Amino acid sequence: MTYCLAMRLDDGLLFLSDSRTNAGVDNISTYRKLHVFSPTADRLFVVQSAGNLATTHEVLDLIGRDLVRADESLATVDHLFEAALYLGRLAADVAARHSGTLGRNATATFILGGQVGDEAPDILLVYPEGNYIRASDDRPFLQIGETKYGKAWLDLAVRSQADMRIAAKVALSSMEATATANLSVGPPYDLGIYRNGAHELQHVRIAGDSPFLARLSDTWRDRLLAAVDALPAVEPGDISILDPDTAPT
Amino acid sequence: MTYCLAMRLDDGLLFLSDSRTNAGVDNISTYRKLHVFSPTADRLFVVQSAGNLATTHEVLDLIGRDLVRADESLATVDHLFEAALYLGRLAADVAARHSGTLGRNATATFILGGQVGDEAPDILLVYPEGNYIRASDDRPFLQIGETKYGKAWLDLAVRSQADMRIAAKVALSSMEATATANLSVGPPYDLGIYRNGAHELQHVRIAGDSPFLARLSDTWRDRLLAAVDALPAVEPGDISILDPDTAPT
Repeated sequence: MTYCLAMRLDDGLLFLSDSRTNAGVDNISTYRKLHVFSPTADRLFVVQSAGNLATTHEVLDLIGRDLVRADESLATVDHLFEAALYLGRLAADVAARHSGTLGRNATATFILGGQVGDEAPDILLVYPEGNYIRASDDRPFLQIGETKYGKAWLDLAVRSQADMRIAAKVALSSMEATATANLSVGPPYDLGIYRNGAHELQHVRIAGDSPFLARLSDTWRDRLLAAVDALPAVEPGDISILDPDTAPT
Repeated sequence: MTYCLAMRLDDGLLFLSDSRTNAGVDNISTYRKLHVFSPTADRLFVVQSAGNLATTHEVLDLIGRDLVRADESLATVDHLFEAALYLGRLAADVAARHSGTLGRNATATFILGGQVGDEAPDILLVYPEGNYIRASDDRPFLQIGETKYGKAWLDLAVRSQADMRIAAKVALSSMEATATANLSVGPPYDLGIYRNGAHELQHVRIAGDSPFLARLSDTWRDRLLAAVDALPAVEPGDISILDPDTAPT
C-alpha cells in the first residue's frame, strides 16, 4: 500500500509521500514515491505514485527516455493537463501490456503537480485509465493509496485556510495517523514544497526515527487529549439530546 | 454503509451506532442499528449490525422468536461467547439461505456486547461466517462498517485510558469524522452506556440537528486547529530532518 497526498494552497503546492512498499506482509521494502522532473527552466513536475510498483518504474523510465528522444514529453507539453494526459497514456499502455498476466493488478494511479511557464500551479489526479481530474476549488487536496485514515486532517487544513507552514504540519499529522493504522504505510516520508513561480522544489526526507517526527507525534497526542477534555459532555437525560420515544428496543 | 463502534472500559461498555442505510445513493433511509435484548434480569445483550439490512432484520426476528419457544436462545446461554456463537449461527444460516440470489451480499457482521450473570462484561465481533473474536486487551474497541475514517480517535481514547465520560466524547468525535467523510454514514446516532453489573443499558438518541452535536463539532474543530498551531514547524534545511543524500530525483 501507499499514502500520498498533495495540497494546492494560496502560496504554492505541497506534496507528501510515504515510501513503504509491500508484496505481502512478509516482503516489505522502501521505495521513493515522490519524483521530480524539471526538464527545462520554465517548468517543474512532481509525480506521486500508488499501485503496481513495476508499472510505476516502467512509466518513470519511459518519461526519462522520452525527454531525450520523443516528439512528446514533459519538455514539450504546453500545459499541465497535457502532461497529465501524457502520463496517463504511458501508464495505461504499460498496464495494458502486463494485463494478460496481472489483470487489474498491473495498474497505477498518480498525482501530478507542478507548473508550466506562467500557468497557475495545480495538482491533478491521473487515473489508471489515463484520464484525470483537478483538485476541486472547495477542497483543494488530492490523495492516492490508503486515503481514509488521514482524510479528516486534510479537511481540517482546508477549513482553516492553512498557509504552507501550517499545511506541512497538517500533512505530516495525516501521514502519521495513516501509518499508525496501516502497517503498509510507513516512513521515511518525502515532503516537497513548491512556491508559486519558483519552478523548483524544496524537498525534505523525514526518517522514521527523526526527533522531529517524535516531537510532532507527542505534541499532537497531548493536544488531542486536551481537545477531547474540552468537548461538551454527553449526559443521558440531557433534554437537548434525548428523545425518549426512540429508546432502542 | 454503516459505522458502529463499541469500547470496553474499566467501568463498563460503550456502544455507538449511526442509523443511515442505503441501497444506492438515491435510496437513503434511517434504521436503528443498535438493538438491546434483556430476556432475564441477570443478563443484557447489545447487538450492533452492519451489512445486509434484510439479513439483519431476519436475524433479529429469529432472536425474538427463539426467546419464546426455542431450546437455545439469549435467555438460555450461560456465557457471552455462547451468545456470540448463537448469533453467528443465525446470521450464517440466514445469509446462506439467500446466497443463491445475493451471494456474498447477503452477509452481515455484528458487534455483540453485554454481560451474562457475574461474568465480566465484554464486546465481541461476530463474523458473517459465524465465528467471533473478543476485543483485544491492548486495544479494547471494535468497529464494523466504515471503520477507517474514525479509527484514530479510538486509538486516542485507548492511549488516554479514557473513562466513560471521556470515551463518549471520543466516540462521537469518531462518528462525526466518519459521517463527514462518507455520505452513507449519518445521524441520528444511538449511544448506549453499560455500567458493569447493571444489567441494563442507558441509551441516548442524538439527532443530526441537535445543538449538542453542533457544539461538539465546533469545539472539536477549534481545538484541533489550535493543536495544529502548536505542532513543531517543518523547516527545509533543519538538519534533524534533512538527509541531503536522499533528495528526490
